[in-house]
This record gives sequence, structure tokens and C-alpha cells, in this order.
Amino acid sequence: MIQMTLIQIDNYGPWTVTPNPCNESDLQILQAELFADVQRQIAMKKGLVFYTRFDNMLAVTNGLNEEDHMRIQRSIRNRYPITISMGVGTAKTPYEAQKIATEVLQNKGGAQAAERKEILAIDSLVKPEDSFVQMAHIDINGVTDSLTDIIPAFDTNFLVNKAQHYLMTKLIEKGALLFFIGGDNFMSPCNELGTEELMKILEEIDDEIDIALKAGVGRSDNAEDAAYMGDLGLEEIREGNNEELVYVLEKKN
Amino acid sequence: MIQMTLIQIDNYGPWTVTPNPCNESDLQILQAELFADVQRQIAMKKGLVFYTRFDNMLAVTNGLNEEDHMRIQRSIRNRYPITISMGVGTAKTPYEAQKIATEVLQNKGGAQAAERKEILAIDSLVKPEDSFVQMAHIDINGVTDSLTDIIPAFDTNFLVNKAQHYLMTKLIEKGALLFFIGGDNFMSPCNELGTEELMKILEEIDDEIDIALKAGVGRSDNAEDAAYMGDLGLEEIREGNNEELVYVLEKKN
Amino acid sequence: MIQMTLIQIDNYGPWTVTPNPCNESDLQILQAELFADVQRQIAMKKGLVFYTRFDNMLAVTNGLNEEDHMRIQRSIRNRYPITISMGVGTAKTPYEAQKIATEVLQNKGGAQAAERKEILAIDSLVKPEDSFVQMAHIDINGVTDSLTDIIPAFDTNFLVNKAQHYLMTKLIEKGALLFFIGGDNFMSPCNELGTEELMKILEEIDDEIDIALKAGVGRSDNAEDAAYMGDLGLEEIREGNNEELVYVLEKKN
Amino acid sequence: MIQMTLIQIDNYGPWTVTPNPCNESDLQILQAELFADVQRQIAMKKGLVFYTRFDNMLAVTNGLNEEDHMRIQRSIRNRYPITISMGVGTAKTPYEAQKIATEVLQNKGGAQAAERKEILAIDSLVKPEDSFVQMAHIDINGVTDSLTDIIPAFDTNFLVNKAQHYLMTKLIEKGALLFFIGGDNFMSPCNELGTEELMKILEEIDDEIDIALKAGVGRSDNAEDAAYMGDLGLEEIREGNNEELVYVLEKKN
Repeated sequence: MIQMTLIQIDNYGPWTVTPNPCNESDLQILQAELFADVQRQIAMKKGLVFYTRFDNMLAVTNGLNEEDHMRIQRSIRNRYPITISMGVGTAKTPYEAQKIATEVLQNKGGAQAAERKEILAIDSLVKPEDSFVQMAHIDINGVTDSLTDIIPAFDTNFLVNKAQHYLMTKLIEKGALLFFIGGDNFMSPCNELGTEELMKILEEIDDEIDIALKAGVGRSDNAEDAAYMGDLGLEEIREGNNEELVYVLEKKN
Repeated sequence: MIQMTLIQIDNYGPWTVTPNPCNESDLQILQAELFADVQRQIAMKKGLVFYTRFDNMLAVTNGLNEEDHMRIQRSIRNRYPITISMGVGTAKTPYEAQKIATEVLQNKGGAQAAERKEILAIDSLVKPEDSFVQMAHIDINGVTDSLTDIIPAFDTNFLVNKAQHYLMTKLIEKGALLFFIGGDNFMSPCNELGTEELMKILEEIDDEIDIALKAGVGRSDNAEDAAYMGDLGLEEIREGNNEELVYVLEKKN
Repeated sequence: MIQMTLIQIDNYGPWTVTPNPCNESDLQILQAELFADVQRQIAMKKGLVFYTRFDNMLAVTNGLNEEDHMRIQRSIRNRYPITISMGVGTAKTPYEAQKIATEVLQNKGGAQAAERKEILAIDSLVKPEDSFVQMAHIDINGVTDSLTDIIPAFDTNFLVNKAQHYLMTKLIEKGALLFFIGGDNFMSPCNELGTEELMKILEEIDDEIDIALKAGVGRSDNAEDAAYMGDLGLEEIREGNNEELVYVLEKKN
Repeated sequence: MIQMTLIQIDNYGPWTVTPNPCNESDLQILQAELFADVQRQIAMKKGLVFYTRFDNMLAVTNGLNEEDHMRIQRSIRNRYPITISMGVGTAKTPYEAQKIATEVLQNKGGAQAAERKEILAIDSLVKPEDSFVQMAHIDINGVTDSLTDIIPAFDTNFLVNKAQHYLMTKLIEKGALLFFIGGDNFMSPCNELGTEELMKILEEIDDEIDIALKAGVGRSDNAEDAAYMGDLGLEEIREGNNEELVYVLEKKN
């Protein structure tokens, strides 16, 4: 079972334009620092946050309990001009878990409902014995040689975004999520996704848009170790001159 | 003329996996804080940075000279485990400007060339009298009511990403760029893009993927004021119950 | 028993002037962010850090084990241009604990020994059943009315520093430490210090330098809760119009 | 003439305990990040901030105009739960300048007056042609060999604080200020202080409390360059095996 938390800034949209629009640079700094801050706190318990839309962040939080979540909310309230609400859900697949996390929070009121503030809505928490996270770290083969050092920066950005869009489209059908994590890297929480299914997806994308991808898949009882196993899997593929599409590593506890 | 700067972390990919892969959470925090840091420094001179791929960031830097760029490089070197190289270009369109900024930096060596470190490659700087920036702040109509409060968080994220992909595809043909700035918001540096052309693009996207967008367009001699005029333009449209697709405001100096 | 950790930047002095002196502003930012960063991580386990000399920070770390310390070291290495070494000691008094923490680290090499890097030297860790922290939160009576709003800012700063110097001098004799925590506030880890002894110290300072102080004393099995109980103690004294010098609160577990 | 700015958090004390006391760790992080943030912004214009009491910070701001100050206030308001007020003064000596800066702000209301919020009170700004800053960078001879690597961390901290207290006491009589900047380092804005006077102060402290200090004195038309010249002066003394007590360097513009 995977546990996911939806982190939502309360009434953010209206706040950004009241009484007048904030400078865009201030909002960008606020959003980036909030993400870094929440990441640092969740990482202390081996969870992992994805910036998603910045005002709505999704996190894999196996190992974090109710107090851990409340502590983060209080810490943000004390240091930022905004507050955050959270919804927590668990399921066999990441897609289902974030769906439940969203619903349990939506039931407490809208994201822009003035009366909804710093809600912590927990549908369920994963029991240690049931805790399992599968993460695929996906990157583009030789992006530096083939793109970064040759074509304009925005064109590379465009191709990476295109790969993201195609990957999202295919993974969501399998109950898996996909997040861009910088450079040419994507992280996919993908419990229940089979190795064959993932290989097929990477092959299809190569055929359809001519972008060669590879994936290191990690498995553990928490997000941090699963992601790390995925990193090691990618290293294995690189050492094999990218002959393999997918390499799976599991952390034994 | 618009001035764009490509900010590239030197030899970042290899650094992240040497001697062993860094924890993903540490990399996410490093990237987000670097972006926030560079943003704060560039904003002091009324420029604006977009996180782009995090290891490669694009910035509109009208008003920043050579010393301003060097100062940022030094400040990052003194506080981070990595260094940054920069390329600067100017042109009539943002696409051309970033293309020149990329090429002038690529000519100094590859992003992963160990010998290339903290390069500042300036092709040209915009003269104050020629300085002009047009920014379109684009958002999705009623995203909170129609998406955030109703469907799962990742589905909203998926639709926003889809809108981004379609917008990028169409704007790049006009020499304009597009960056996601959080929530349901996009910022498009778009010198030379006509109001009719932009309206046509928004209408096409509504037809093709059924996502209703609107745009506030701002014009000024710097990125900050152009973005702010764009924000005010969006407010005008909202006050008019989203009957208009595009609203243009220019800041007189 | 109290557990204290000495956090020391490795070879910091020479680094700041090699090859040339860093801009003072960059060093000030680096030091403040490192402190905030370590604080956030240690606080997740209910410890508390004091900035002390910034390149040498002292922390009350009851509840943090070896892995917690290693995790912080790795996280700093991955995001800063410097590394940190740590020494950990436990004792009946804070003074003894930091003395042991210092010695166990000094035994591993000098702070500016090029070969000493990211050492974690643990003399001992407090067992949960023996864990006890006493914290005194001391402030100056009516500093805003009597100083901040009346005399020059630097004169107020001077008087606060004077109070700090006198408090340090007297508390160190009792095996207690004292740290300035901002405004007119001081925090004193003071296991083994009796209420009568503390009252006597505050009275002496009022007599000697005419600065009226009060103290909320908190007791718990961790630094965070002890400090919080101390805060509540101060509130009790304020509600009693500062008639009491010391108010003690203990958190029952 | 030196220009100094007093930066004061509005109504901070009451905020920290309403409705309940904030966790001390959150306050420490907030204060350190606010200082780092203001430092980064002021440094972009070659000013320098000292954390002073954290809720009251003093800065040397030659070169910063009214818009620069307003920009920083707005940027803090948009990203923190608190706001800041500022007072600006100029004079022949740093002490006089901060005195004027304090008075002009005090005249606008008390630091804890609920109605006083985000005030910018400017008594005067230094004209470019009159701009002059003298900074003394003072440190303790061989602190690592003689203290850090030998005695307990808190004892070193105590001695550094003692040196600070004696230095403050003597410098304030000469119209100079003194701030601890980390390690064994102090920075003293000291326009109008003669080299002989400074040498005499250092000699007196060596006699009175047996702490050997040295000082690099820098002069320029802004705080950043003056501090840097002071750093270079210290390097000169080190290269001469600390035979000199004071070394003065002036930056020619």
C-alpha cells in the first residue's frame, strides 16, 4: 500500500491578487521556498514531495503519521503568510491514493472557501507491515549530447515537456503518476505497474515521438529508499551502455 | 528588443551521482532554493527567471548588465556546492534571444565539460532606449470550481500540463516562449506576438482540447513591469466576467 | 541527563579567504541559512540548536540518534559548499555535556585540519528513560517601553549584550549555558540549576547593572517541550504583572 | 557621510505569543531566514546588514534610495507572516546615523503599536559625492589553535562574547558600532575613528582581558567595498605574522 498526501495552499489564488497582484518574482520565490521547506520536513521521515502545481503539491508519505502532518502545518503557519491544508489517502495504486486524498480534503470545503483553513483530513494511514512504494526514475538517453549542447534551451525544454505529456498520458491509465524532477528526469510512483508494462510504454514513446527513455525502478517500504533504488537502477543501465530499458532493484529490510 | 539569459548549472548531471546518487529530496531542495535565490537577485533589477528545467533556467534580463550577472555567479559559487554558467542574447523575439543566449554559451563548451566552469558569455545587451518586453499572463477560466474542487489533484495537474503542451506548441511558432508559473498560470514572453494571433491561439485550444483560457498582456521596458501589467490585464477580464479573451495594458515610462 | 551536540563547519576560516575573501554578505547569508537549515532538521526530532558562533553551533539533541545526525551531515554536504563535523556528549549538566561533545570531536582532529572532514564523534547518547531537559527562557522586563521605543537601537543592543555577558558569567558557574535568541530573549539549558539559585542570579543582575529580568523555566524529556513550557512560564509571570521572577512548569508525559 | 537603516519587525513580540507561543525552532528559523533575505536584497546594492537583535537589524545602506527600501518592505510582506518598518538616517559617525534612524522611526509610533505597520521613515539619504564608509574587520589572533581546538565550545563562545562586550564599550564612546559576524570576527562601522584610537583600544583590551585582537580597516563609498578592503587588510596582517595591530586599505574609485 502507498500513502499519498495532497498539500494545498488555503485560498491562495485570491490572496495573490488582494489588495493588488503580488510581484510575480515574490510569488515564484514563495512557492519555491515553500516546496523546499515542506520537502525538507517530509524527507526527515523518508517521504518525498513533488511540486506538482506548487499551490497543490502531491507527496508520497508512507511513514508519516498524523502528528508529523500537523507539525508541518504549524511550522508553515508560523513562517509564511499563508496556511496549508492536507488530505491523506492510501491505496494499492498511487492514482487511487491521491484520488482518495483529494476527495477527503474536498469534502472539507473548497480550496478557495474562506472558512476552510489548515484542514488535516486523513482517510487512512498505511500500517508499517503493509507499507510498500515502487518508484520509477525515468530519464532521456544522452540528453546533454543530443539536446542541451546542440539545440536552443527552450527547444530542449519543449521536448522534455512533450515526453512528460506522453508519459503522463500512458502511465495514468496504469494507475501510476508522473512528475518532472528537473533536467531530463521524471519520477513515477508506480505501485502495481509491471516491468513489461513499463517497457512497453517506453518503447511506444520511442516509436511515437522518437525520444529514447530508460527507467530505474526501485522498491522499498518508503519513498526515499524506493527512489534511491531507482537511481541505482539507472546507474546499472548506464554502465551497460543503455542496452536495457528498465532495471529493477528492491531494498531488503 | 528583449534580453534573455540562459543560466546553466555546470556539470550538474555527473555531480548528482558522484560518488553515489544524492538523495532525491536533497536535489529537489537544492534546485528549488537555487531558483528562488537567483530569482531574488534578478528581481532586484526588475528581471524575471523561469525555473524551466531547474538545471537550465531561462530569464528575461532587460536592465541587467555584465556586473549584475557576474555578481550572481559569485554569490552562488560562495553558497552552493555547484557553480553556474550564463549565456546572454538579445533579439526582436524571445525565441531568437534564448537561441542566441544558448549558442553563445554552447560555444564555450558543453554543459558537462569538466573544464567549462562559471562561464559568462554575452552576445549582446539591450540598450535602455531599445528595451522592450511583452508578457502574456495566461490562466485557465475557473479552474478551482471546475477542476481543483471536483476532480483528483493529479487529473487537474494532467490537464494543466496538457494546456501547457498545446500552448507551447503554438506559441513557439510565433517566436514566443511559455513557462508554467504555478496553479493554472502560465507566463509567455511574447514580443512581436499580435493580439489577434494570441486570441486565435486561445480559441484553437478551446476548440481542440476544450480548455478555456484568457490572457492579460503587459508591455514595458522590463520584465517585472510587463508581467505586472499582464496581471492587471487579467484582473480586468475577470471583472468583465471573462467575456474577453485578451486584455492589453502598457506601462508608460 | 541532557544530550548536547557540537556542530562545527570543517575548515571554515581558511575556506572563507581562499583564493580571495568571500563577500561578507555571502558569508552572512550562508551562515544564517545553514543555521536555519540545521534547526529545521533537528526540530523535526524535538531538538533545538543555538547559533552560538555560527561556525560552531551548540544543540540540545535529546531524542536524536546516530542516524539522525548522519542524515543532517549528508543533507548539508549535498547542498552547501562546506561540510560539518559533529561531536555528541551527555551529562547531568549542559556545561558538562558540551564539554564532552567538544572533547570527543577535538580528539578527531582540529577544526582547521584539512584531513578532518564530516566527522561524527559520539561519546554517548541519552537513553529515553534517562532523558531530561530543563530550559529557562529569560527576558528583560518591558524592553519595548523602556528601551526600544526610547533610546537608539544600538544602545538597546548594547544593554541586551551586557545582560547576556553578566548572565553567562553567573550561569556558567552553575553548569548552565546561555544563548541569545533574539529581541530581549535568552535561552538557558540549565539542568541541575535550582529555582532559588536562578532567582538569586536575576536579583544580583538587577542590583549590579539595573536590568530587571524574569525567567520561565520548563522541564521535559526533550528540548522543544522544555522550551515551550518555559514560554508558558513567562506568560504566567506577565499575567501576574511581573511580580514573580521565576515560574516553573513541567510537562508530564 | 554614512547612511544607516534600522529595520524593525512590526509588533513582533506580541505576534510570537498570540494566540499561543510559537515553537522556538520556528521563530529561530524565521529570524535567520528574514536576516538572510534582507541581506541578499541589500547586498545587491552594496549595502550590508547586521542581525543585531534579529527583530531589530541595523544596516549600512549608502547607495540605497527610497525605492530600494520600499521594494524590500514589499518583498518581505509578500513572503512572511510579518511586516517590517524602517528608519533611515545619515551622519558623520555610525552611532549618530543609527541614532537619527531610530528617532525618525520612533516618531512614527512604537514597535508594538498595533496601528504602526510597514513605515518607511527617511530623515535623509547620503548624496553620492558625500558617500563614505569606514569598516574595521576585527578578529582574535589564532583563535582556532588557542581556543577552538583546546577548550570547550561554550568557553570559546564566552570569551568571544566577552571580547565583544569590551569592544562595544570602548568603540561606542568613539561613535563607532560593533557587530559580531561569526567565528571570532567582528565588524565595526567606524567612520571618524582614527587608526591610533583603534590601536589604543585593541591594546587596552589585550591588557585588560588578555585577548589579542587585530583589525583590517577598509574605506570606500559603500559598505561592501569597505568591508572587503578590511578583509584584505586582515590578510596583510596575517601575512606579516600578526606583527601589526591595524592595517588600513582604501578603495580608489
